[in-house]
Amino acid sequence: MADSVNTWLPWEDPRAFLGGLPERVEATYYGGGELPAEADQVEFYVPSYMGSSQVVEAIREMPNLKVVQTQTAGFENVLPHLPDGVTLCNARGVHDASTAELAVGLILASYRRIPTAVTNQQQGIWPAEAGIDDSLADRTVLILGYGSIGEALERRLAGFECEIIRVARRPRDGVHPIAELPELLPRADVVVLLTPATAETKGLVDAEFLGRMKDGALLVNVARGVVVNTDDLVAALNTQRIRAALDVTDPEPLPEGHPLWSAPNVLIIPHRGGASTAFPPRVARLVKAQLDRYVNNEPLINVVAGPPR
Amino acid sequence: MADSVNTWLPWEDPRAFLGGLPERVEATYYGGGELPAEADQVEFYVPSYMGSSQVVEAIREMPNLKVVQTQTAGFENVLPHLPDGVTLCNARGVHDASTAELAVGLILASYRRIPTAVTNQQQGIWPAEAGIDDSLADRTVLILGYGSIGEALERRLAGFECEIIRVARRPRDGVHPIAELPELLPRADVVVLLTPATAETKGLVDAEFLGRMKDGALLVNVARGVVVNTDDLVAALNTQRIRAALDVTDPEPLPEGHPLWSAPNVLIIPHRGGASTAFPPRVARLVKAQLDRYVNNEPLINVVAGPPR
Repeated sequence: MADSVNTWLPWEDPRAFLGGLPERVEATYYGGGELPAEADQVEFYVPSYMGSSQVVEAIREMPNLKVVQTQTAGFENVLPHLPDGVTLCNARGVHDASTAELAVGLILASYRRIPTAVTNQQQGIWPAEAGIDDSLADRTVLILGYGSIGEALERRLAGFECEIIRVARRPRDGVHPIAELPELLPRADVVVLLTPATAETKGLVDAEFLGRMKDGALLVNVARGVVVNTDDLVAALNTQRIRAALDVTDPEPLPEGHPLWSAPNVLIIPHRGGASTAFPPRVARLVKAQLDRYVNNEPLINVVAGPPR
Repeated sequence: MADSVNTWLPWEDPRAFLGGLPERVEATYYGGGELPAEADQVEFYVPSYMGSSQVVEAIREMPNLKVVQTQTAGFENVLPHLPDGVTLCNARGVHDASTAELAVGLILASYRRIPTAVTNQQQGIWPAEAGIDDSLADRTVLILGYGSIGEALERRLAGFECEIIRVARRPRDGVHPIAELPELLPRADVVVLLTPATAETKGLVDAEFLGRMKDGALLVNVARGVVVNTDDLVAALNTQRIRAALDVTDPEPLPEGHPLWSAPNVLIIPHRGGASTAFPPRVARLVKAQLDRYVNNEPLINVVAGPPR
């Protein structure tokens, strides 16, 4: 009979959360804090979602580790700690619904001036002259980093009478290469960032990028904070020429007193792109399927670093 | 040669706004305040959008009036002032994009807790534990008063992985009758009100209606304030069992100190459903086409009261 497979999972009742565990899988709960005993036995590890750096650093205490399965699409925080020979799988697809939905929510909240309404409501003020909101209808939305989440966003925008421009590192039919950004940016009313955080994308949105955006355009970041040069963004916002709605910032958390908090025409959400009720059932389906593949020696999906397995 | 047709229009440069005027049409600007001379000559009148009651009462000063063309889908404010023999046309369709879009914006802002984020941002606070947002994915949205705006809303919701229940006064294929509401309400996570304000719908959303909504359900009113019994809504919100997002209220404007302002889990927008950049090009196309029809003796569309013409 085959040996059991030791896993560390971030759910106290993994059978309930995942809807069962494959035979042979032994699950130990680890969600941060002191390491459980027998870290040297762990083969398959799922770090807790949005946990501290500790849950990633714990990888170094697992000499028998074969697979790290993240619950996030981004994995830049894991790479520096990934030992040779360990396979890293990300959660591509799991956050598509939640993140794409938040991107639409941020666009509409900004366009329909919901932050102003919230402030008026706090004071019990019905403005005498409410003015005219921006509508997404008739506008052009540029999706930068068009992939799985971008497709989910496009499906959600399909009914809004707006035009979509797709841009990605890997150009393909209907998807422009990043090299065309200088010509494409001035056409967009909304720019949604969905790029992963890589050496290439770090600081991609700088003064020059922001300067090419059209007057009144809205920058939406539901990717990673470091894709935007924060100083350049604060400077651009202070000219009141562009607007922004950010689920992520650099630094993150944004410290008290940071000038981005009080820049004009910016809406800041504390990194909740993936953290919604859409997430648990979707990550459960992914992890369950990956564990099934692992114990049955079938190829894992979503391998982003380390050997295929 | 045919006589000229005298119109009162609420645009200072109607040729620019409408993209030209039909030959024979004489346009006088009226946007409220003192009446222009020769009210007795006016045949075709477009009251200003969201103007005071005065722009509607002005109808009584127009003995030669043939047509009132509103810029709103609702027309309950005009009916009491409409003389016999005058045709009333509404702006069905013109606000679909703007209103449907705001409904999605209100759902997403509530679900993704944007009001809380706005409050935290004012204080420069990045919460240590942001918790989990509700996602529209996997939820059921009941559209009450399913018509032209409801169709526009359904098109916008199509990509959000949610289920739609359609309810209207006039049942038809795929659209439930209002009589089925008691059984349908407990199934809905979100209830969007799109009914016109009529004797039938006034106070439709009362304590019993709210009591049938499921725990945590969200009521979205982008219709008319009087469709909801405000006292009942305040009482229901205060139990913290349901939530609401309101573009319209009763009374409206909501007065300072009204308990609805400070009820828990409510987001209030000052009646901006139709007031967005989507509106001017769409109302211009409608009014231009109606004027063309009128001077050419072709049947007007959107006749909602008075004789067909």
